[in-house]
Amino acid sequence: MGFTDKLRSRWTQANSLVCVGLDPDPAKFPDAYADDDDALFAFCRDIADATAEYACAFKPQIAYFAAHNGGEAALQRLIAHINAEHPDVPVILDAKRGDIGSTAEQYAVEAFDRFGADAVTLNPYMGRDSALPFLQRDGKGCVFLCHTSNPGARDFQELIVSDGNGGGEPLYQRIARAIAGEWNGANNCALVVGATFPEELKVIRAIVGDMPLLIPGVGAQGGDVEAVVKNGRTSDGTGLMINSSRGILYASMGADYAEAAARAARELRDAINRYR
Amino acid sequence: MGFTDKLRSRWTQANSLVCVGLDPDPAKFPDAYADDDDALFAFCRDIADATAEYACAFKPQIAYFAAHNGGEAALQRLIAHINAEHPDVPVILDAKRGDIGSTAEQYAVEAFDRFGADAVTLNPYMGRDSALPFLQRDGKGCVFLCHTSNPGARDFQELIVSDGNGGGEPLYQRIARAIAGEWNGANNCALVVGATFPEELKVIRAIVGDMPLLIPGVGAQGGDVEAVVKNGRTSDGTGLMINSSRGILYASMGADYAEAAARAARELRDAINRYR
Repeated sequence: MGFTDKLRSRWTQANSLVCVGLDPDPAKFPDAYADDDDALFAFCRDIADATAEYACAFKPQIAYFAAHNGGEAALQRLIAHINAEHPDVPVILDAKRGDIGSTAEQYAVEAFDRFGADAVTLNPYMGRDSALPFLQRDGKGCVFLCHTSNPGARDFQELIVSDGNGGGEPLYQRIARAIAGEWNGANNCALVVGATFPEELKVIRAIVGDMPLLIPGVGAQGGDVEAVVKNGRTSDGTGLMINSSRGILYASMGADYAEAAARAARELRDAINRYR
Repeated sequence: MGFTDKLRSRWTQANSLVCVGLDPDPAKFPDAYADDDDALFAFCRDIADATAEYACAFKPQIAYFAAHNGGEAALQRLIAHINAEHPDVPVILDAKRGDIGSTAEQYAVEAFDRFGADAVTLNPYMGRDSALPFLQRDGKGCVFLCHTSNPGARDFQELIVSDGNGGGEPLYQRIARAIAGEWNGANNCALVVGATFPEELKVIRAIVGDMPLLIPGVGAQGGDVEAVVKNGRTSDGTGLMINSSRGILYASMGADYAEAAARAARELRDAINRYR
């Protein structure tokens, strides 16, 4: 089953819009992992196993693996574990890749063949030809940055671009329109929209129809769950992958870290479902 | 010595503006590497040793390593080899990273601490706060995408953005202006400008003063050396890192691949120097 169908099935099956972000930072690991050489893998595996029931997707952030020698092997084993033990939960590799076509081909191999992800996050700045090696991968998902969650999102993403006829719209809306149109021929696109910008989320939802949206920024970054759900949901009450990383991963530093993560994921699911 | 000073010294010392791109594709390797398990490292090492004399910089493209299990270890050894054997030649890790601050910190560790690069390429779409963990690294270079070499560069980079006073300019110029201004407080920024857009290169040079420009797109992508040098050089005849990857790496499939690579690098240096 392709990424988009897998995600839609999972939304219904798990009755959850929670995306569990896997951003392993050894400085924040529970004491149980203090001297564990395999902690990157083992900690994330434990979190994945504890939270899978409440997850519509897992999102490992590759930077947290790439900062360490051997990190890629840990990431590879983690995704293999998820694919084997939780095959109904799609895996989005958060990598924000973007390069010319010949290089993008290599990045597509990295995300889909080497790591076995169902989808990957991508940066659209270099244009459609840079995205084609991903878009053309049968059954794989392409999650493009649109309006990100950080304050610097305002620097360029909100600049007003001319439509050539005297009108204008913010750059992020132009990008949303392009991706929802020509780029989405295989119906395998999604967009990243930060929870910290709920008004922009509402506009983007109106542009893209029922395209899935990946929403970082609730929890540590301060995004509001009610505003996200009300402004971002589709008419059937789905359409969103609302990500939490730190709030789930580091819910407890004690021996109960897995139970605490499960509780945090369940509570976020329930908080979201109150507004669907 | 920091990246910018190292690069300026090297331009003079080697009398060269050639950046040697290291994009190892096993399908194109010389026959000598057909059965070599360590070919990613060994081929790039041979090319680096053969071309160092003509290089103002080396630019390994991380995607070509990340497509393979064990690729990161090969990349790490390659950069360590260059730093040991050719310490005057700066290494730019071509990775086009860009993410929120806490994740960008991890990517900075990847590029500078794990891999030992002098500089890294970055995507500016997420704004200044996403770049700070790189900008704040003492002595390290930040090479931001501005106007890329691929056809899709036109999709968004050339959109006309409003200046808020009834005027406008293309997005890539706005980005060049921001980076040459507030972002460049430590004088450690550079920009990527494709050789395939020489008129845009001229405009960017006028905006950024003597900031270094990394120029991909001569050779396989069709950029014209004369137009690049005339439109992109600074008043002292430097300011450019003109990259060639495939034209140098795969100059010969035979036993003479290293000599052929050296010849290709020397010829590109001489072709550039004719117009400086």
